[in-house]
Amino acid sequence: MNDKLTPRPVFIVSDSTGITAETFSHSVLAQFDEAEFHTVRMPFIDNVEKAEDVLRRIDQVALETGLKPIVFSTLVNPGIQAVVRQANGLFLDLIGTFVGQIEQSLGLKSSHVIGRAWMPANSQKYQHRIEAINFSLSHDDGQFINQLGDADVILVGVSRCGKTPTSLYLAMQYAIKAANFPLTPDDFERSALPKTLAPYRNKLFGLSIDPDRLSQVRNERRPNSKYATIEQCHYEVSAAERMMRREGIAWMSTTTKSIEEIATTVIQEVGLIR
Amino acid sequence: MNDKLTPRPVFIVSDSTGITAETFSHSVLAQFDEAEFHTVRMPFIDNVEKAEDVLRRIDQVALETGLKPIVFSTLVNPGIQAVVRQANGLFLDLIGTFVGQIEQSLGLKSSHVIGRAWMPANSQKYQHRIEAINFSLSHDDGQFINQLGDADVILVGVSRCGKTPTSLYLAMQYAIKAANFPLTPDDFERSALPKTLAPYRNKLFGLSIDPDRLSQVRNERRPNSKYATIEQCHYEVSAAERMMRREGIAWMSTTTKSIEEIATTVIQEVGLIR
Repeated sequence: MNDKLTPRPVFIVSDSTGITAETFSHSVLAQFDEAEFHTVRMPFIDNVEKAEDVLRRIDQVALETGLKPIVFSTLVNPGIQAVVRQANGLFLDLIGTFVGQIEQSLGLKSSHVIGRAWMPANSQKYQHRIEAINFSLSHDDGQFINQLGDADVILVGVSRCGKTPTSLYLAMQYAIKAANFPLTPDDFERSALPKTLAPYRNKLFGLSIDPDRLSQVRNERRPNSKYATIEQCHYEVSAAERMMRREGIAWMSTTTKSIEEIATTVIQEVGLIR
Repeated sequence: MNDKLTPRPVFIVSDSTGITAETFSHSVLAQFDEAEFHTVRMPFIDNVEKAEDVLRRIDQVALETGLKPIVFSTLVNPGIQAVVRQANGLFLDLIGTFVGQIEQSLGLKSSHVIGRAWMPANSQKYQHRIEAINFSLSHDDGQFINQLGDADVILVGVSRCGKTPTSLYLAMQYAIKAANFPLTPDDFERSALPKTLAPYRNKLFGLSIDPDRLSQVRNERRPNSKYATIEQCHYEVSAAERMMRREGIAWMSTTTKSIEEIATTVIQEVGLIR
């Protein structure tokens, strides 16, 4: 049935996980705010038999919905790709489209090798990533203070301003050892940074947040607590910002920012990668 | 200086974080195993002035290296994009290339709106993601057993088989509430699953690992411990696999797999999304 309410079917077809292609497809489809999409990811399509299954599935959905599916493909093996291309859909060749142009520019041929991730398991880069995740986990919320000297960055800020997800993301995506340390009312009363942090001044980066937003977040966590009141949040945020200014710690507001945006700004400001 | 040893410069230019474009560029460039690349990400290029800085930087690098930089762009604003296109590089329009084809297929015009992430902060989807990260963190390694009923999946397996990074990744990337629970020598002696897990049998998914690899991983963590010996690892892995078979728990080996591959397989096997 063709129906204006039926979302357009979208298939993500990859010989590997398809996660990159899926994230990329979100960015492309976000340009169509009037349309609705229904996305299915089909990972590990690494032989012709699996490709034939994909072909049948796409054709079936096209028939059932009366809509031409959009197919985001990162298939690089010519034989496997040829099968999926036969489907009754709009075939978008994510890798091949650009590989061709780069081949010309470099004067080199590409390998067409499937499943070529940029960070394979067992590579040294991958080991660094796992180490960074373990480091960020064990140095979450100031809980483990040994080896803080190994941190690439130490995020500081009041409770629930976004330190933990940002630390984990930096480790997961960029193999950055990101510790985080809370600034608490104790520190504000003493008017001094936690002593533990003193030797690592040059690794500190601050996160702050709008007090109203903070109160909302804390209320979800601990409803009707003093901790979550607007007054407490106002007090902590302004004391923390005062402390960061006084100590010369660069900081940013996380209020309307996604984890990716916060992480990107931290990397830029701290100069973590180049 | 043109020099065969100089890596080809690559610029990732985005009006947002550029993380999607960067990951995508890795997949494309991985097809050229004979070439070396040096990648610089230039995020938040959301006005003409910043675009002019990018233009100057690309042209300067082209001059210094004598190599034509490859420019992966997700710029969607025509005015901003036009500036960067003037650079002396190979301009790859990641979004526009496919948006044009989709416009035709849908019979709709795209919005050309910048900074349109698929999961903006403050959206409900984004809140779910943060909740999932908090959940996975607090339910790491069996440390918090309340609310296990809220888990979308509970990963089980011996210590250091990959449960923690996978749980965090599932939460971060897919807003999946992934708890994880160790299977320990205590459980093997009792020949029974941890009692805590009994009510959640249908949420369990097992991870296993090659004993030699496990011994290597554990040795990095606790060198020369009994915990890390080949014998201990053999014992635990075979006991865990026996238990999972007996209890009818689906499981996979993580030995040569990346976090993304493990997470994708978990999602497929448990049927977490769709």
